[in-house]
Amino acid sequence: MNYTQTFTIAGKDAHRVDGIEKVTGKAVYTGDIELPAMGYAKILRSPVAHARLLKVDAAKARELPGVIATLTRDDIKEFNYKYGATYKDQSIVAVDKVRYVGDPVAAVMAEDPAIAEAALDLIEVEYEEVPKVTNIEEATAPGAIQVHEGDVARAELRGSTYGAPPRFNGTNICYYLGFGRGDVDKAFAHADHVFEDTFRFQKVQHYSLEAHISIASYDGEKLTVWASCQDPFTLRDHLSGIFRLPLSRIRVIVPYVGGGYGGKLYVKAEPIAAALTWKTRRPVKLALSVNESFKTVTRHPARVTVKTAVTKEGRLLARECQIFMDTGAYADAGPRVTQKAGYRSLGPYKIPHAKVEAHGVYTNTVPAGAFRGFGALQVTWAYESQMDMIADRLGIDPLEFRLKNLLKKGDLYTAGDTPVDCDLEEGLRRVAETIKWQERDTKPNRAKGLSCCIKDGGGTYKVAGATVKMSSDGSVVLLTGTVEVGQGPRTALSQVVAEELGLSLDQITVAQLDTDVTPYDISTSASSSMVVMGLAVQRAAQDAKRQLFQCAGKVLKQKPEDLFIQNGEIHSQNGQSISYSKVIVDFFGSKAGEIIAKGLYKDKRSKKAVLGSTATFWEIGWGGVDLEVDPETGVVHLLNYVSVCDTGKAINPDQCIGQDEGAVMFGIGHSLMEEMVYEDGQLLNGNLVDYRVPTFRDLPDGLHTILLENGNGPGPFGSKGIGEGGLLPVASAIANAVSRAVGVRIQDLPLTPPKIWRALQAKAEEQTKGQAEARLKTG
Amino acid sequence: MNYTQTFTIAGKDAHRVDGIEKVTGKAVYTGDIELPAMGYAKILRSPVAHARLLKVDAAKARELPGVIATLTRDDIKEFNYKYGATYKDQSIVAVDKVRYVGDPVAAVMAEDPAIAEAALDLIEVEYEEVPKVTNIEEATAPGAIQVHEGDVARAELRGSTYGAPPRFNGTNICYYLGFGRGDVDKAFAHADHVFEDTFRFQKVQHYSLEAHISIASYDGEKLTVWASCQDPFTLRDHLSGIFRLPLSRIRVIVPYVGGGYGGKLYVKAEPIAAALTWKTRRPVKLALSVNESFKTVTRHPARVTVKTAVTKEGRLLARECQIFMDTGAYADAGPRVTQKAGYRSLGPYKIPHAKVEAHGVYTNTVPAGAFRGFGALQVTWAYESQMDMIADRLGIDPLEFRLKNLLKKGDLYTAGDTPVDCDLEEGLRRVAETIKWQERDTKPNRAKGLSCCIKDGGGTYKVAGATVKMSSDGSVVLLTGTVEVGQGPRTALSQVVAEELGLSLDQITVAQLDTDVTPYDISTSASSSMVVMGLAVQRAAQDAKRQLFQCAGKVLKQKPEDLFIQNGEIHSQNGQSISYSKVIVDFFGSKAGEIIAKGLYKDKRSKKAVLGSTATFWEIGWGGVDLEVDPETGVVHLLNYVSVCDTGKAINPDQCIGQDEGAVMFGIGHSLMEEMVYEDGQLLNGNLVDYRVPTFRDLPDGLHTILLENGNGPGPFGSKGIGEGGLLPVASAIANAVSRAVGVRIQDLPLTPPKIWRALQAKAEEQTKGQAEARLKTG
Repeated sequence: MNYTQTFTIAGKDAHRVDGIEKVTGKAVYTGDIELPAMGYAKILRSPVAHARLLKVDAAKARELPGVIATLTRDDIKEFNYKYGATYKDQSIVAVDKVRYVGDPVAAVMAEDPAIAEAALDLIEVEYEEVPKVTNIEEATAPGAIQVHEGDVARAELRGSTYGAPPRFNGTNICYYLGFGRGDVDKAFAHADHVFEDTFRFQKVQHYSLEAHISIASYDGEKLTVWASCQDPFTLRDHLSGIFRLPLSRIRVIVPYVGGGYGGKLYVKAEPIAAALTWKTRRPVKLALSVNESFKTVTRHPARVTVKTAVTKEGRLLARECQIFMDTGAYADAGPRVTQKAGYRSLGPYKIPHAKVEAHGVYTNTVPAGAFRGFGALQVTWAYESQMDMIADRLGIDPLEFRLKNLLKKGDLYTAGDTPVDCDLEEGLRRVAETIKWQERDTKPNRAKGLSCCIKDGGGTYKVAGATVKMSSDGSVVLLTGTVEVGQGPRTALSQVVAEELGLSLDQITVAQLDTDVTPYDISTSASSSMVVMGLAVQRAAQDAKRQLFQCAGKVLKQKPEDLFIQNGEIHSQNGQSISYSKVIVDFFGSKAGEIIAKGLYKDKRSKKAVLGSTATFWEIGWGGVDLEVDPETGVVHLLNYVSVCDTGKAINPDQCIGQDEGAVMFGIGHSLMEEMVYEDGQLLNGNLVDYRVPTFRDLPDGLHTILLENGNGPGPFGSKGIGEGGLLPVASAIANAVSRAVGVRIQDLPLTPPKIWRALQAKAEEQTKGQAEARLKTG
Repeated sequence: MNYTQTFTIAGKDAHRVDGIEKVTGKAVYTGDIELPAMGYAKILRSPVAHARLLKVDAAKARELPGVIATLTRDDIKEFNYKYGATYKDQSIVAVDKVRYVGDPVAAVMAEDPAIAEAALDLIEVEYEEVPKVTNIEEATAPGAIQVHEGDVARAELRGSTYGAPPRFNGTNICYYLGFGRGDVDKAFAHADHVFEDTFRFQKVQHYSLEAHISIASYDGEKLTVWASCQDPFTLRDHLSGIFRLPLSRIRVIVPYVGGGYGGKLYVKAEPIAAALTWKTRRPVKLALSVNESFKTVTRHPARVTVKTAVTKEGRLLARECQIFMDTGAYADAGPRVTQKAGYRSLGPYKIPHAKVEAHGVYTNTVPAGAFRGFGALQVTWAYESQMDMIADRLGIDPLEFRLKNLLKKGDLYTAGDTPVDCDLEEGLRRVAETIKWQERDTKPNRAKGLSCCIKDGGGTYKVAGATVKMSSDGSVVLLTGTVEVGQGPRTALSQVVAEELGLSLDQITVAQLDTDVTPYDISTSASSSMVVMGLAVQRAAQDAKRQLFQCAGKVLKQKPEDLFIQNGEIHSQNGQSISYSKVIVDFFGSKAGEIIAKGLYKDKRSKKAVLGSTATFWEIGWGGVDLEVDPETGVVHLLNYVSVCDTGKAINPDQCIGQDEGAVMFGIGHSLMEEMVYEDGQLLNGNLVDYRVPTFRDLPDGLHTILLENGNGPGPFGSKGIGEGGLLPVASAIANAVSRAVGVRIQDLPLTPPKIWRALQAKAEEQTKGQAEARLKTG
């Protein structure tokens, strides 16, 4: 990549190609689709957290006029009804047991949704309740009842070994990762300082404005599914397994998606819709309510204990992380999230000795799965809080403490992985400068906080293909499997094509995502699309260019390698030029045919890498906040928030800023207010009103995203993926600032006003008590 | 092609891959599609055949509650509103004149179809009628009023020249083809016998059970059209021209199509739907009634005069054809049909001297366009009727007369074209044997008739691409632009893929046809799909094989060229084997990715060929009939019909037979009953009841299709295209048999009972008169 090159369209704030559709309400989402003879499904969900299913009888429901079909455990035996993102521990509807409040027990398909809803009441179910475990402590207590019976754990040891992995027979631990390097025990024994602190992350939900929805239609030969999902090819794979159909006989179409954030990865309620259409041979729409989405997937609550050894000079020496991730009643992506939480728990620092143990824990709560940040969020919250706590204890400036320990560009996060691809110090200094770190906080109850987090971008192994289809007028349809979840890939990827082929954006459109015709893409996740799909798209455009040059070479009687593109025409060194259209028409001998070009991207597999494949790129989150705490109420008021976002090269700067600001707001949510509140296993606030997310009123007074564009990304024109980085530092930056402002350290999220207020009260009581004791002593 | 090869799936009567969908009613046609906020359009059509438009005022219609928009000449000026398949002589709605009863004058879009229909009555239109010309004679009479003012004709001279083409200034001749070879004038002057006969072909309609229908939706960026059409890429091209959008911003989707027969080629009412959605930004469905389809496109009525010189030995020496094709009020595909009628008028015979003049004529009737047989039908009717008339006059057996003159395999139909690719004698002898030609007709009023016709298959220049998309389990989605009009290409093309890749049919599905993603195909027409798309598909499958071999070679450590396929696995010479799935998973390092392979077919352009491109293959129609005429009623009873169909290699024999039988039944329709009946420019029978087509009761008592499989086709595995051949000989075979049975020669179709009865009466009167005169003489 010659970064001195000038760009025509890449780097411009092009208007969103899906903008008009969306602002005019024309954009089609799954819910907008109606099919002839379509039925509507509703799900009967368990009202209890843990019970044996003694009886499920839908006979009376079937008799209700308008009911087309019911689905219970009696109907699913013909399928491979057990499935799951990582473990096959879920079934289409419950068979022997229910494991959380909301677990699907049965479904009804009816002529309209109201009839389906009414029919649910007619299904007779008998539950025999058994004890439940609803959090990490209960689930890991000795003798705790098992959510899934048997030896459910998979254990992995990576990096330096600690002997055989522990055995978790008969427990609720479903996944374990142990990895490390050096010798932490020795390092802790000899360190100047060792600090051990425990942090907790609450249960939060993705809160997509569009709840989970799918339409399934099986005609006896092909199963077609319209789904609001982020990885249609993975969904196709799961359905292929469940219904024993070749992949080519399953077609997944993805209309626009109204938010995903990881909650629409893998497989959710789609098998219920598919089983109903299989049974009835009629299309069926299964639209979950927001409350049902809350009962479908969440983020993992976590308990993270970080033990860190530091030299007296303030250098990190060793770190041990004990991580427990509550994956709820079914594994979903939990084992992978737990693995990544473990891998990502060391932070952007040089730490010679490390030991990590990460545990995935089954509980009788809603399954937890992939969620923006994917395990990183829980551990960054912990390690960046602890960094300030250590700095405080050692009396070092938190900025200086971090700068002293940061990885440098080219350093290895772990052996075998991609070297760090950016200057961490640059980003952190930009945050500090912008937030005016060096200026003293003069007002009472006001302070600044910093945080710096690292995450392997791309996450898991990635594969993506793309096709560029150029018609005889030179205009292009781009086929890409990246899902437009709102993050803007249609625009950015179109810009890549436009830049590469010298076209204007209005000559390019993006085809509907349809697994039948769209080249394979593994998933829209892990901030990966700009690099992974971006490169596939760029290569497809380059292939189109190569084909055009070959044809043009014949027409112009020039060597293809002597041709170049300017303003959407092909030029020769000797001044001839020819339009794409003329090249194509000439080649096909008519205004017919087209250029079909393809591109492919595959991540590198590496046996040396701790997790088997290397980071596609490194995604960094640098955040700084200036805030004020109202000591009377505990309310945190955000005066200014600064985020630095390493884009490598921003293909569409406006969209990058939008993405990063969105990430910050997302972070503000779980930092200050979001939490799924349970009582006796029952969710109390599973709706858009009671579950409080940030609104415009919660925006910081100032919100600044700084784009770094050093051309250091592996993506097209030096770009990198973004979208999660901005989220990671928010909670710790805020908690760090609160601590500096009012002297209370909150270690369990969210930092709600009552929690801060109580901590202030406790602190005041402590002080009063201390003063009283002092008075007593001196008295 | 090694024709001794054995086949696994090609050549088997595989069940139709769209069969279950269709027989269970799940198959989706355009009419089944409903979109959110969709409106419904209706068209106001001219009640008069020829008039100036003095006023079109839709103001009152717009006021009707439920009306969304109206469309008149005032609304179309922003578009390139003139369009047409060959000439831009049509406008979206009429502007200055109406030219036939049914000409679209205005349209209404409303919330439901009934409101739209009601609103049509509120549109105020004033017509000033002018004289009309409703048939070839009126239109070509000296001083006839012009349907389109000005110098409208395009004239082409091909082959040996006759000086400058005639001038048709100020006439209704819109197209002229003159072509020839040798010197007909000299040949006629010196021939032993010269016969000149004139034949007429009536106006008939395609009678697709699904009338023309489209849905259009424009969101301000992309125009999406669902259309029942046979050439979505051509439709896209026309819409691109009209609405000035890049091709990539128009998406044409073709659901299943309920019959086409050429009537759904090019552009029909779709621009009206597109203009309405453009204006309203709401989707709109425009479903024509059957009566409106009758007012949209028909087959060309024709007058064909054939003048043939024969030696006394019965050898054809020269032929001159004067052809007039009534293309109605707009050219549509008329010029091309006229061109092909001219080119195809010489028949499957060696004729040293030839001269053809074909004229396309505007009249004030429904436009005539492409229709199964495409110009060949009218001229085969003429020349194969005349062949029997000549044999009769010369006292030669019609079979012997034909055999004496047939082209041989390898002969040239015209210089520069593809040599004849089959043994015409073989087919004709098979018909004669099967119909028992040599057995004397012993019963009164019963006789046999023969006919043999030739048509350049592929018709006009063809280009097609295809993509084979193999998923990680080895199953395949085929992307092909061939429209499934009922003729079975999904099955046959899937068989080609299955054969080439050693897969079973249930591993293969065909993607929905969508111009955004489906590779370009020029059209589904001219019996071309099996060869044109068949080769593109076969090449795509071969490309997939090549890619698989390359990957497998690496895995097995073998040279790719030493590998072969058996039972859907790849084998090496030394006995190793590997599944496709393992190859793909290995290559992508995960159960991810896919093989994307493409194939392309282009016809050969040839400057030597009379029409600029050569026949893709030769399609022959051989037919023989045994029938009985009821002299009391004139009813023709078909006792036996034999058709020989040259498939080269039948990919799916059952489907080939079905196609050929369908062609014969189609032929029986226009031979015996079908005719659009007009009175004063008004169509009297434009509906499914009064317009009589053959039913099961009209089936011949015996109907036999004989498939020739000599591996002589250019398509996959030696296949050829079929579907029109069977149609061509029907009318002439029947007329020839009727003549032999009852001694009346009908030269204008159809051979209805009244027409035959009247001819018999006339003949009887003639005989009576002759006998009376004889008596008078002898008396």
